[in-house]
Amino acid sequence: MLSEINKKYLQESLTFWNKLNGEQRTVLLDNTSEMRHAKGANIHSADNDCIGVILVKSGELRTYILSENGKEITLYRLNAGDVCMLSASCLIKNITFDVHIDAESDTDILLINSYTFSQLQSQNVYVENFALHVVVDKFSDVMWAMQQILFLSFDQRLAAFLIDEALKTNSYDIKLTHEQIAKYMGSAREVVSRMMKHFEGEGLIALYRGGVKIVDKNRLRRLV
Amino acid sequence: MLSEINKKYLQESLTFWNKLNGEQRTVLLDNTSEMRHAKGANIHSADNDCIGVILVKSGELRTYILSENGKEITLYRLNAGDVCMLSASCLIKNITFDVHIDAESDTDILLINSYTFSQLQSQNVYVENFALHVVVDKFSDVMWAMQQILFLSFDQRLAAFLIDEALKTNSYDIKLTHEQIAKYMGSAREVVSRMMKHFEGEGLIALYRGGVKIVDKNRLRRLV
Repeated sequence: MLSEINKKYLQESLTFWNKLNGEQRTVLLDNTSEMRHAKGANIHSADNDCIGVILVKSGELRTYILSENGKEITLYRLNAGDVCMLSASCLIKNITFDVHIDAESDTDILLINSYTFSQLQSQNVYVENFALHVVVDKFSDVMWAMQQILFLSFDQRLAAFLIDEALKTNSYDIKLTHEQIAKYMGSAREVVSRMMKHFEGEGLIALYRGGVKIVDKNRLRRLV
Repeated sequence: MLSEINKKYLQESLTFWNKLNGEQRTVLLDNTSEMRHAKGANIHSADNDCIGVILVKSGELRTYILSENGKEITLYRLNAGDVCMLSASCLIKNITFDVHIDAESDTDILLINSYTFSQLQSQNVYVENFALHVVVDKFSDVMWAMQQILFLSFDQRLAAFLIDEALKTNSYDIKLTHEQIAKYMGSAREVVSRMMKHFEGEGLIALYRGGVKIVDKNRLRRLV
C-alpha cells in the first residue's frame, strides 16, 4: 500500500489523474510501489524487461547508451519531479533503441507496473498522451547532448562540463576522478587527463588526487 | 482546392480522420495545399517560420542539423507515405532544437497549415497524439544515427553508407562525389577521400570522377 504522501505525489504528477474513472484510479494505486535505489545501482539495462514507469521523488537517475566496447554517452539526467518512460519503452510503439539507467545518488522512486500502465493507456487516450509528451520532452534533451558531442571541440566540452558541475554542486571544488569525468562525457580517461593537464598548465584549474579545483572561472567560461 | 486523389491520400494518411467532426474535416481540407519542391531546394531551416505539417507523396526529404561551422549531421530521410512534424515544431511543446529539411529529389508534398493543425490539436486529443507519435518514431531514427556516428569507426560507417546507397538505388555504381558523401555522413571531404583511397587499395571499390563502383560487396559487407 502506498503511504498517503505518496498517493498525493502520484496524483499531482500524473496530469491524466482527473481523466481516470474510479476503477482505473484504484488499479493504478494498487500497482504502484515505493522503492529506494542506492547510489550506483543499475535500475534498467538494455536487455532488461520493461520495468515500468518511474516517478523520481528524490535523488538522481542518469540515462545513457552503451557501445559494444563499453563507451558510454549520457543522454540526460532525471531529478525530483521527473518521469521516466524509457524504463517502460515496450509500452511505446516504435521505440527501438535501448538505454541504461543508473542511480547517481540514493534515489527514491515510485514505480508503476508496466502491465497496468499499458492497460490504462489502451483504455484512455489521455494516459497515452501523457506518456508521449514525456518521451518527446526527452527527445530535445538528447538532441542537445548530441550537438554537444558532435559539434563542440573537446576543450570546449570539458570546460562546459566543469562549469556545469560547479554550478550544480555550488562549489569550485569538483570531487570527480578523470575516469568518472570521462564516463560522464562519453570519452576516454586518457583524453580527459591530457586536456586536464593542458588546462592546469594554462592556470585554469588545479588538479589533486580524486578531484579538480577551478582556479580561473572567467577564462574557463570564455572557452565555451 | 485539393484534387480528389489528394483528398483521399490525406484521409488515409491521417489516422485521426475518423475522430474529426464535419466542420473540422472541412477546415483541414481547406487549409491543405499541394506543393512540389525541386531537387536541392531547402524546405525548412532553423530560422524559418513554422511552415506546417508535411505529408510526403513522392520523392525524398532529408532532415539534418547544422553546426555553426557548417558541419551537417543527417538525422533521417522521409519518403512517400512519411509525415514530417519538425517542419511544424512550434506546435509541439518542448521541442527546443532546430533542424533543416532539404528535398533530395523532386518531391511532391501536401502541406497542412500550422495554424489549422494547431487549432485541431487543441480541440482534439487524437490529433495531438498523432503528432506526438510521429515525433517519437523519429526519436528512434535519431538515436540510430547518433549511435552510428558515435560508436562505429569511420571505415565501418563508410562501408555501411556505401552498402545502403547500393541497396537504395539498386546499383553497385554510386554516383556521388566525395564532397556529397562527406555531407551525408557529417564528415569532412578529406576524411572520406582518404578512406576511399584505402578501400580502393584493398580492392573493395573502384573510384572514378563523380562516383564510386563497389567491386567486392562481400568483403565490404564484412567490414560493417
